[in-house]
Amino acid sequence: MAEKLKYGMVGGGPGAFIGAVHRAAVRLNDDAEIVCGAFSRSKEKGDETAAGLGIDPQRSYTSFAEMAKAEGAREDKIDWVTIVTPNNQHYPAAKAFLEQGISVACDKPLTLTVEEGEDLKRIAQENGCLFCVTYTYTGHVMAREARQIVRNGEIGKIRMVMGEYPQDWLLDTLETITEDNKPWRADPSLSGRGAAVADLGTHIENWVAYVTGLKIEKLACNLDVFGEGGVLDNNVEALIKFQGGATGMYWTSQVAIGFDNALKIRIFGEKGTIEFVQEENNYLKVSLRGQPPRIYSRGSGYLTDEAKRYVRVPTGHPEGLTEAFANIYKDFTAALRDKKAGKAVDEEGYGYPTIQMGIDGVAFYNKCVDSHEAGAVWVDM
Amino acid sequence: MAEKLKYGMVGGGPGAFIGAVHRAAVRLNDDAEIVCGAFSRSKEKGDETAAGLGIDPQRSYTSFAEMAKAEGAREDKIDWVTIVTPNNQHYPAAKAFLEQGISVACDKPLTLTVEEGEDLKRIAQENGCLFCVTYTYTGHVMAREARQIVRNGEIGKIRMVMGEYPQDWLLDTLETITEDNKPWRADPSLSGRGAAVADLGTHIENWVAYVTGLKIEKLACNLDVFGEGGVLDNNVEALIKFQGGATGMYWTSQVAIGFDNALKIRIFGEKGTIEFVQEENNYLKVSLRGQPPRIYSRGSGYLTDEAKRYVRVPTGHPEGLTEAFANIYKDFTAALRDKKAGKAVDEEGYGYPTIQMGIDGVAFYNKCVDSHEAGAVWVDM
Amino acid sequence: MAEKLKYGMVGGGPGAFIGAVHRAAVRLNDDAEIVCGAFSRSKEKGDETAAGLGIDPQRSYTSFAEMAKAEGAREDKIDWVTIVTPNNQHYPAAKAFLEQGISVACDKPLTLTVEEGEDLKRIAQENGCLFCVTYTYTGHVMAREARQIVRNGEIGKIRMVMGEYPQDWLLDTLETITEDNKPWRADPSLSGRGAAVADLGTHIENWVAYVTGLKIEKLACNLDVFGEGGVLDNNVEALIKFQGGATGMYWTSQVAIGFDNALKIRIFGEKGTIEFVQEENNYLKVSLRGQPPRIYSRGSGYLTDEAKRYVRVPTGHPEGLTEAFANIYKDFTAALRDKKAGKAVDEEGYGYPTIQMGIDGVAFYNKCVDSHEAGAVWVDM
Amino acid sequence: MAEKLKYGMVGGGPGAFIGAVHRAAVRLNDDAEIVCGAFSRSKEKGDETAAGLGIDPQRSYTSFAEMAKAEGAREDKIDWVTIVTPNNQHYPAAKAFLEQGISVACDKPLTLTVEEGEDLKRIAQENGCLFCVTYTYTGHVMAREARQIVRNGEIGKIRMVMGEYPQDWLLDTLETITEDNKPWRADPSLSGRGAAVADLGTHIENWVAYVTGLKIEKLACNLDVFGEGGVLDNNVEALIKFQGGATGMYWTSQVAIGFDNALKIRIFGEKGTIEFVQEENNYLKVSLRGQPPRIYSRGSGYLTDEAKRYVRVPTGHPEGLTEAFANIYKDFTAALRDKKAGKAVDEEGYGYPTIQMGIDGVAFYNKCVDSHEAGAVWVDM
Repeated sequence: MAEKLKYGMVGGGPGAFIGAVHRAAVRLNDDAEIVCGAFSRSKEKGDETAAGLGIDPQRSYTSFAEMAKAEGAREDKIDWVTIVTPNNQHYPAAKAFLEQGISVACDKPLTLTVEEGEDLKRIAQENGCLFCVTYTYTGHVMAREARQIVRNGEIGKIRMVMGEYPQDWLLDTLETITEDNKPWRADPSLSGRGAAVADLGTHIENWVAYVTGLKIEKLACNLDVFGEGGVLDNNVEALIKFQGGATGMYWTSQVAIGFDNALKIRIFGEKGTIEFVQEENNYLKVSLRGQPPRIYSRGSGYLTDEAKRYVRVPTGHPEGLTEAFANIYKDFTAALRDKKAGKAVDEEGYGYPTIQMGIDGVAFYNKCVDSHEAGAVWVDM
Repeated sequence: MAEKLKYGMVGGGPGAFIGAVHRAAVRLNDDAEIVCGAFSRSKEKGDETAAGLGIDPQRSYTSFAEMAKAEGAREDKIDWVTIVTPNNQHYPAAKAFLEQGISVACDKPLTLTVEEGEDLKRIAQENGCLFCVTYTYTGHVMAREARQIVRNGEIGKIRMVMGEYPQDWLLDTLETITEDNKPWRADPSLSGRGAAVADLGTHIENWVAYVTGLKIEKLACNLDVFGEGGVLDNNVEALIKFQGGATGMYWTSQVAIGFDNALKIRIFGEKGTIEFVQEENNYLKVSLRGQPPRIYSRGSGYLTDEAKRYVRVPTGHPEGLTEAFANIYKDFTAALRDKKAGKAVDEEGYGYPTIQMGIDGVAFYNKCVDSHEAGAVWVDM
Repeated sequence: MAEKLKYGMVGGGPGAFIGAVHRAAVRLNDDAEIVCGAFSRSKEKGDETAAGLGIDPQRSYTSFAEMAKAEGAREDKIDWVTIVTPNNQHYPAAKAFLEQGISVACDKPLTLTVEEGEDLKRIAQENGCLFCVTYTYTGHVMAREARQIVRNGEIGKIRMVMGEYPQDWLLDTLETITEDNKPWRADPSLSGRGAAVADLGTHIENWVAYVTGLKIEKLACNLDVFGEGGVLDNNVEALIKFQGGATGMYWTSQVAIGFDNALKIRIFGEKGTIEFVQEENNYLKVSLRGQPPRIYSRGSGYLTDEAKRYVRVPTGHPEGLTEAFANIYKDFTAALRDKKAGKAVDEEGYGYPTIQMGIDGVAFYNKCVDSHEAGAVWVDM
Repeated sequence: MAEKLKYGMVGGGPGAFIGAVHRAAVRLNDDAEIVCGAFSRSKEKGDETAAGLGIDPQRSYTSFAEMAKAEGAREDKIDWVTIVTPNNQHYPAAKAFLEQGISVACDKPLTLTVEEGEDLKRIAQENGCLFCVTYTYTGHVMAREARQIVRNGEIGKIRMVMGEYPQDWLLDTLETITEDNKPWRADPSLSGRGAAVADLGTHIENWVAYVTGLKIEKLACNLDVFGEGGVLDNNVEALIKFQGGATGMYWTSQVAIGFDNALKIRIFGEKGTIEFVQEENNYLKVSLRGQPPRIYSRGSGYLTDEAKRYVRVPTGHPEGLTEAFANIYKDFTAALRDKKAGKAVDEEGYGYPTIQMGIDGVAFYNKCVDSHEAGAVWVDM
């Protein structure tokens, strides 16, 4: 086996669900190990997480700044850092590591503003760093299959895109929010101008962009703040016009009773339609004109080679969220290894979502908020 | 048995699918019989249809005007006329019969303009006539169940409404349209300003209004004309704001490959959600907050009495389109019999969609076109 | 229009669900009218039903014997009689009409014994009568499509057949049965030796035979009588061996909580699989080896001509139980008209289930009971 | 963190899918690490796998015998060995480790004969070893929920059990089998008397036993060998009678076109029904008498505490096969830690499938073969 890569993490301390999933995904791949982290601002909590992961206590930090400085000074630098903090920390944390020549995998939304995102992109390039934005749902095997089907021209020129992402988890949270007890996602100073639109809306935007390559020309967006405790948007409705004539509608909600995490995207072309539902990620519905709809199953022999590369267990044996993350990391570590081996790396070609996709997501949700604030009018991207 | 009511039909000659369904629906109920018609402008075709239905050849006409005059002069007047012509004939035909004191069941969209609709409403009132607009999908048992669930407050105050109605039948038709061979739905002089938005969009609008009672405050709508042969809109996307704070999105399409007739409406309240899918009309999905989603089945003992009234065959034995129409006619003939018996008739109370709902539909699709023509901007209802 | 055929009915009085469905089905077709009946042994109830149907009071009878005699003596004999009585009356009633030269449409199970069935077959032939057994679920468009797919060899030689038909309606009934209050289905003297196995099991057996042509070689069957009030079988499990090497399993139940009327049949061949679910009768799932499963939709252009013949409303507009019955009657009246016109009639070729299929069903359920009574051992057909 | 446990593996070399899944599952839990293995009889292949896992080359063996001897002699003995060899090696390999005082996690079917299984049970007890049989599908969160629902009496006394497990993967393999190229599953000397019945049938048998506690009293079983290259059963149909009066049917197949890995089990009680489908393992359908069916979603607040203990990612974020394995290992390592800490360990109480369940599975499939060989007659368990 090639030697394992080394990585660190910022965020992901006790109680942080997403940090644990990132780490589990890397373990699934078994090609890298975590060696340092700033898991929490609390020394005690951070050390507890570090100890649980078997990390040298010397490499458990209480701030990304401290960590970037210390780790950047080592000869055996980590190959990358994963950033899973509240949104407002993405920019300064990523900047700190990039400036130390350390590549970054960062949660979405990438930053609070496009300017921050562009800044990170520039710094990464100047420092020869790679940058992956962990838009989870592009990691599914059937997302890769969908992308390849579109690229192969099987559904023809795209006419419409319908994306939705309803959840209902916020309902209970809403009722417990007080001035003194506010999750970071409900605090604009930590999460940015958008809540559902940034957290969920960008997943739709990215999945569509990743699979179709379509670029949004303009949009009109309405944001709702339902519930007593609501501060930021928890329901988002947008009309989209893409360059080239396609149109679409995006909806996301955190107060849609009966929906867990129901990302669903339908792409309609002149020759066919594909439908992806995250909660049924092992399948893809493909309808070609004049033919009965077909249900593609992950792992089947008829899939494209591009999708097959990511299959871990045989068809009918479900994969899920962790595998989606793992596939993104599999792409990212492949690029990191090539870079390490001195090969030229074109980040577009590895499959993971690039920093440009991160920037596009930030632009998207800010434009949604702009539109809403102006009365849900059309705004150009 | 009470004596059967008598009715006539305008439109519905050879090859006209919807006229045949109306007649089949009335036969299912077995409480009325067809006795006259102006099925076609072609004498031959009209007589052929009349003969097939066992109608006295003397009562087969070639125009609604002729028919209204002749039938209006009879002592044994028909109890109602069903109008299933191209859209532009709805107004003059309905007017002609109402002026003869004959009640009307008319296909949707009711008229080309709101003014025409208001005019019909006035004339109906002046002549003591009843008026039913045959919005099919309100006739399903589970539509009635949905309405009752909302009325009972089970899902609480409504926050969002998501309506969609994709089809793909137009694709083949589009390619065969020429100047000389144009179906009436593709000819603005016959169909009106809107195509998909009028034909399908009004079904969404009406179903939501019928079930929830919500009133649209304003909307922003984009219309697409895809395909070479396209003249009128075949893809419609609208943002909706309702009076009282609820919001929604409506989408309908005639070029959505893989979708047959997929009307689907989801209504999200503060306490629960209901989901109705026309193609699975024997079921209703009901999700209450904090509980697993439940699948209600038509005919089950736990349904409301209001819905049970319409059940024809036991649970698990599917009902379909024809039963939906039949339920609307069942409501309408109940009102007609009450009128005949001299009772006071409040049309709102019988369950069938009223002329006001027809007018609202005309207003809706015209506002959609207005919005689109102005750049998909927000317009007030 | 060709003149309407005339028919009568035995059974189907007030409260009898299935008689009403037969009549509604004939009305849907609009090619025949009911003119006489022995709807009930109660003069009052029978006359009430007759009056509701607009039948001449002179032609309302209180017994099939009286009706067969009176109607058989008329010059304008009815074209057929529909028999929807308790099972034990099928034989004597059908016999009485056949002996008058009147064709018969009879509910299943055809008779209590194979001998009775063979007797009816002989009498029908001797009297030049046609005989249709109304196995409902063969009437669905997608049953016809399934049959054609098998006949076309698309799924290859059949290896396995899995049939199931769970319901739960009996649960409530079971608790109300007393010696004095017993539905006929719970009384062996009226229903015969089998309950679920005869009422539901024969539907599986017939559907499979109808679609595949397979003949059962032997079977082993277990019958359960669950619940306090249970007298006859309400849960049936059978292993099947077909001539030619295919095998299968049939299960039916009347106490399977959560299932309404869930007939589901899967036929596995060397090249493909078809799956039909009665509650979703507008669809057929077809899986060919090495390809993604496909969902065929009733009314689509890619269906076989044999299936398309029966399509009434466009794809996506659901048909249901009544249409299935109507399709069987459509086949039957086509044969009756040919007979009337003096043409040679091969009943196999019209599509409706023949008396031989009725006899096969009686043989099937009696063999199931034989097997069970001997300890669920294998018995030859 | 508590120190990680250490384990080894027998089998699971290059190309062996299931060994890799076991290792991934342990990595997901992150509470144990692999330190030795006999991955292949080929020194080269075994060392390759060991190197890929970062295992000390000294602890890479070419036989379980060598490995058991060497590892058994170490002071820092491994905490357990995972055995994922062809079936015929389970017994000797497990025996060798148990005799060294090393606990065992063994794939199913446990052994070729009941005697072997009983022998292992005895040896394990004598040596103070724990023994887990990795029946995957009991590891799913919703399997645990199902078990708890049954234990809580929510569905009442069980009446029927319907289990099925169709696959179609064997079709391609069948055509490539020759005398010289035969997978171990097609070679009775390596796989035992049964193929599908042992590999898949035992999954049904165990899942039902695990969830319901029901004991099989007798069964009648037919085995089919379809296809030219077929040697052992690839289609299995069984009637089951349980102690206490419940009955059931089990079907499994490896030649059921269109089915990937479709384990589906329905348990019908006097008060309700539960339905579990492995390919949709994040859900459980629960139907209570007189109520609409409900869809339980993994991770929801309304689940039982017993199930919630195993939830890894929030509701709507799919878990899959690897998590199911990981849950079984989570139970097993909990027991191993308790044993290590000197606590009394009752293996029944930890949640993982015990050696007794393994023995029951071996008894089951051997009785199935017995029944088949005698003409599919009833045999007592």
